[in-house]
Amino acid sequence: MRNLRVVIRYDGTDFAGWQTQPGYRTVQETVEHAIASVTQDERIRANASGRTDAGVHAIGQVANFYTHTRLHCGTLVKAVNAKLPEDVCIRTCDEVPESFCANKDALRKTYRYVIYDGRMQDPFQRRVACHSRHPLNEAAMIRASRCLIGRHDFRCFESNWPNRLTSIRTISRIAISRVGELLWIDVEADGFLYNMVRAIAGTLMQVGRGYWPETQVADILTAMDRRLAGPTAPAQGLFLLRVTYPEELRLPPDDARGFFA
Amino acid sequence: MRNLRVVIRYDGTDFAGWQTQPGYRTVQETVEHAIASVTQDERIRANASGRTDAGVHAIGQVANFYTHTRLHCGTLVKAVNAKLPEDVCIRTCDEVPESFCANKDALRKTYRYVIYDGRMQDPFQRRVACHSRHPLNEAAMIRASRCLIGRHDFRCFESNWPNRLTSIRTISRIAISRVGELLWIDVEADGFLYNMVRAIAGTLMQVGRGYWPETQVADILTAMDRRLAGPTAPAQGLFLLRVTYPEELRLPPDDARGFFA
Repeated sequence: MRNLRVVIRYDGTDFAGWQTQPGYRTVQETVEHAIASVTQDERIRANASGRTDAGVHAIGQVANFYTHTRLHCGTLVKAVNAKLPEDVCIRTCDEVPESFCANKDALRKTYRYVIYDGRMQDPFQRRVACHSRHPLNEAAMIRASRCLIGRHDFRCFESNWPNRLTSIRTISRIAISRVGELLWIDVEADGFLYNMVRAIAGTLMQVGRGYWPETQVADILTAMDRRLAGPTAPAQGLFLLRVTYPEELRLPPDDARGFFA
Repeated sequence: MRNLRVVIRYDGTDFAGWQTQPGYRTVQETVEHAIASVTQDERIRANASGRTDAGVHAIGQVANFYTHTRLHCGTLVKAVNAKLPEDVCIRTCDEVPESFCANKDALRKTYRYVIYDGRMQDPFQRRVACHSRHPLNEAAMIRASRCLIGRHDFRCFESNWPNRLTSIRTISRIAISRVGELLWIDVEADGFLYNMVRAIAGTLMQVGRGYWPETQVADILTAMDRRLAGPTAPAQGLFLLRVTYPEELRLPPDDARGFFA
């Protein structure tokens, strides 16, 4: 059996998230079905770097699967994409060691939360951004976000805590940048708690609107109480941007440039 | 009766174009219905700068309508937007002289044709760009497009010629620019023939792919034969960007920045 790894991009709007659920249209089932119809395996089980929730998008979700096929990776990408619906596609495929696991071998993941803060609504942003009717002060958000970098107990940003053995995670990078009326909040960490990026985005938006002082984010983190943090920002603004693996398991280059580079 | 002018933005994907057609979801009917429900006029007739075809988008479509309402323009924008579905919105509203006609008073219109030429398909481009699987040489396209600027008989780029009294138009500007894997073809003219921008885009793409020499565009223009030009590029790449009026009828400022600025 070969162990193949794919990078998957999807518009999450019309999916009930990554994970297969009977009766729902999910990315996992859609992708597994398309791959199996190409590889002729009886069943394909795609093991993702992590689940994404309903409505959440991915620029670079990663999954691995075992297959009997002898097809070249490039041929497989083309054939599978021809079977996939328009809102999901495979960007790259490469062969990895038998032991590779897209979830366990991931060193870090990067999510991007996109906020559109134009005064007027915009039909072209509704699927791919959260709309804030209040213009946001990104300088204040940048200053407020600094205290989140590093190793902390992030349970104040976790929905339905506790979900995991520990809520300690390490955020290696937070970058907040503005492109016109779009604000990008990029968060890179060794792992994420349930709804963590959306809670961070909801909290930083309170600061950006001037509702909360910049120092309140550090207070929330210390208090370890979800009720003190901001609301969970809506799913349509969230993108799983990329997954980082150790050097020897580095992903093949993707020609993604432009908006999401 | 007051004569009000609105700037309308819409994602054309799920509309059968601007013009009302019984049994179809059109922008005109959707907007007229929303306005009438706010102004309490028995019927609103929105007169656009021009029709857009099924699937074509607008960043700055302009229309005027007569109404009895005494509502302030700002109040009207908010109230109408609250009634409109998510894929269409009003960006600005201002009061214009009784004689103003969004179509007849337009000096020029600017369309943008968007092409995504990444090697792989991209779920986030499918609704708002035409996908060229061949990378395009924009420098060749820019050189090839220069012969179109000025006053010419453009019947070679008109579907089902003749549709109008004359096929002579003046293109005042063509700008082709690349942002990552996106190519923008902006065409400004005093008027457009049926499918003219899509035929120009289809023709320039033949040059960009290297199928046709750059000089062929001038030959096509001279020959005045639609069969010699490239195919009509698909509707999802086309945006009505803006309509220009005389100085005394200038549109109010819109806060549109970012991607479509």
